[in-house]
Amino acid sequence: MAGPRNRVGRAFAVLEAFTPERPTLPLSEIARRAGLPLTSTHRLLGELCESGALERNADGSYRVGLRLWEIASLAPRGVPLREAALPFLEDLYEVTHENVQLGVREGRDVVYIERIAGRRAVGVLTRVGGRFPLHASGIGLVLLAHAPDRVQDDVLEGPLQRFTEHTITEPARLRRVLAQVRRDGVAVSDRQVTDDALSVAAPISDSSGEVIAALSIVAKAGATVAARLAPAVRAAALGTSRALSARRK
Amino acid sequence: MAGPRNRVGRAFAVLEAFTPERPTLPLSEIARRAGLPLTSTHRLLGELCESGALERNADGSYRVGLRLWEIASLAPRGVPLREAALPFLEDLYEVTHENVQLGVREGRDVVYIERIAGRRAVGVLTRVGGRFPLHASGIGLVLLAHAPDRVQDDVLEGPLQRFTEHTITEPARLRRVLAQVRRDGVAVSDRQVTDDALSVAAPISDSSGEVIAALSIVAKAGATVAARLAPAVRAAALGTSRALSARRK
Repeated sequence: MAGPRNRVGRAFAVLEAFTPERPTLPLSEIARRAGLPLTSTHRLLGELCESGALERNADGSYRVGLRLWEIASLAPRGVPLREAALPFLEDLYEVTHENVQLGVREGRDVVYIERIAGRRAVGVLTRVGGRFPLHASGIGLVLLAHAPDRVQDDVLEGPLQRFTEHTITEPARLRRVLAQVRRDGVAVSDRQVTDDALSVAAPISDSSGEVIAALSIVAKAGATVAARLAPAVRAAALGTSRALSARRK
Repeated sequence: MAGPRNRVGRAFAVLEAFTPERPTLPLSEIARRAGLPLTSTHRLLGELCESGALERNADGSYRVGLRLWEIASLAPRGVPLREAALPFLEDLYEVTHENVQLGVREGRDVVYIERIAGRRAVGVLTRVGGRFPLHASGIGLVLLAHAPDRVQDDVLEGPLQRFTEHTITEPARLRRVLAQVRRDGVAVSDRQVTDDALSVAAPISDSSGEVIAALSIVAKAGATVAARLAPAVRAAALGTSRALSARRK
């Protein structure tokens, strides 16, 4: 694998070596994952630790540093969006005691910004900072329905990964569903991600009216009727949109 | 101002130009804040945008990118700690409807990792990713009480900033308070940060028994008795410690 061209790109390749499965890595594994020689990886690690982007564990391995997290918490689509949405997410959680989620689109994926997980609620696959394909979940369907045409075309060209027998993997059908999501102002994913979960999602807009995020409730399929959850989900999304616009002014 | 020596350090200086007050910056301001020439700042910005660490706004200014936030969400003292603590923070919030906070120590400061803000609760100064001196808040007092001796000595040498007339700024008295925090397993900050807030905090330990974080309730001073909140706060902190240990195994 060819390493990135410039030194900043190489430093970023070192940071990208860390994953949810491997949040702690030794030098050799970082070099392998970044596609860089050991010596230059070692030098980059020294510089990254000096700046606080990485931290060293007692056993000599490395982890992502709190200083990087502090800076990254300024990403407008991360913490500030979450802070605007949190009161509305909390209200949804308190009313339903189901899983409540907030996500944005990055390329062809949802990135999950926030998750309030009910301890007695149905299991979900997501984690904060984690990714999931756009075409399966409620949040993903909302974000895909409001994505630029080129993104929609790109996703519809496939392949559309199948998660359950209910996942929509036929492009023509997915296109009709997206049109309906735009009409209804809400998306329903019924057992399209896992066999036992249903999610209802609604779009969050910025002051210009552009859809920049979506929030959802994930509940147990069968035990819940989507139509009963939709008004609360839409109200929370509208409240968040209003909070974001108010903050702008 | 002399710029940092190495290229990674310079790239990090560019990232550090962004602040909660200025999450969006033009090239010239980034160069000024990073102490770097315009030309090399421009080149670094290009490389940082290419890797996704920064994003460009429609008006040509820059913001911290979602890609950086994704990687930073792997910092063990950030999101993973928060995920372990969140169910217990939610329970505290649901029982009290007061502000609930989670923080770790970074140098002489608390860094706030999570905050659930009651909309009808007393106002607080913190934000997620924000910092505050150790010696004033409940969380800060817990983290200071369990910090290495050299950190305690450093903080006690002062200066100890005064926020209200109740802030402890006398080193000998602060040392006695810290000893008591270690004895009681709980810290109370009564109007030591703002004139109307009281916080009760308790330590969170990892599997080796080392205190790595603290959580607190912030309530309206006078309307609340600290002794009434302490058992719930301690139980939530113990629950989080247990969840962290279980995850390790």
